Amino acid sequence: MPEKNDVLIGRKPAMNYVLACITLFHGGADEINVKARGRAISHAVDVVEIVRRRFLPDVKVKNIDVGTEQMPPNEERSTPTNVSTIEITLGK
Amino acid sequence: MPEKNDVLIGRKPAMNYVLACITLFHGGADEINVKARGRAISHAVDVVEIVRRRFLPDVKVKNIDVGTEQMPPNEERSTPTNVSTIEITLGK
Repeated sequence: MPEKNDVLIGRKPAMNYVLACITLFHGGADEINVKARGRAISHAVDVVEIVRRRFLPDVKVKNIDVGTEQMPPNEERSTPTNVSTIEITLGK
Repeated sequence: MPEKNDVLIGRKPAMNYVLACITLFHGGADEINVKARGRAISHAVDVVEIVRRRFLPDVKVKNIDVGTEQMPPNEERSTPTNVSTIEITLGK
């Protein structure tokens, strides 16, 4: 369940998610969580680096967690598979 | 410059890097650094998760750093480009 200050990284261009992060901070958020699974993990790190280096230099990486989620079987796969996750907490 | 206990993640199968990590710990290392750039970042998280969940449950993620490196121009690109980096420190 996404929380209010979560940004879930998918396959859109990085700038879409960068803008989502900046909008949350400008709306008064003190902390936001950038979350991604699987191949989007690299993309999440790109988004965080662009936010803090190019747009909001006072924003710091407060915490990074990695983990594993089990994805249930679907039409393509008959067995559950594991997917890696990342959650990067940014704060002022 | 790679340090003694660094594992640099590239495009080989994850199990190659998992084995490299296990070998370093079995050889007496207390901490190892799993490093990756660009798209290999997702792969680095996969390697870390496999090491600690499947093979070495007493190994913990001690620290995670993300950053940006500037890659110089080469035959394919006439301008320098930025690439994201990750460094995950694992320890017993």
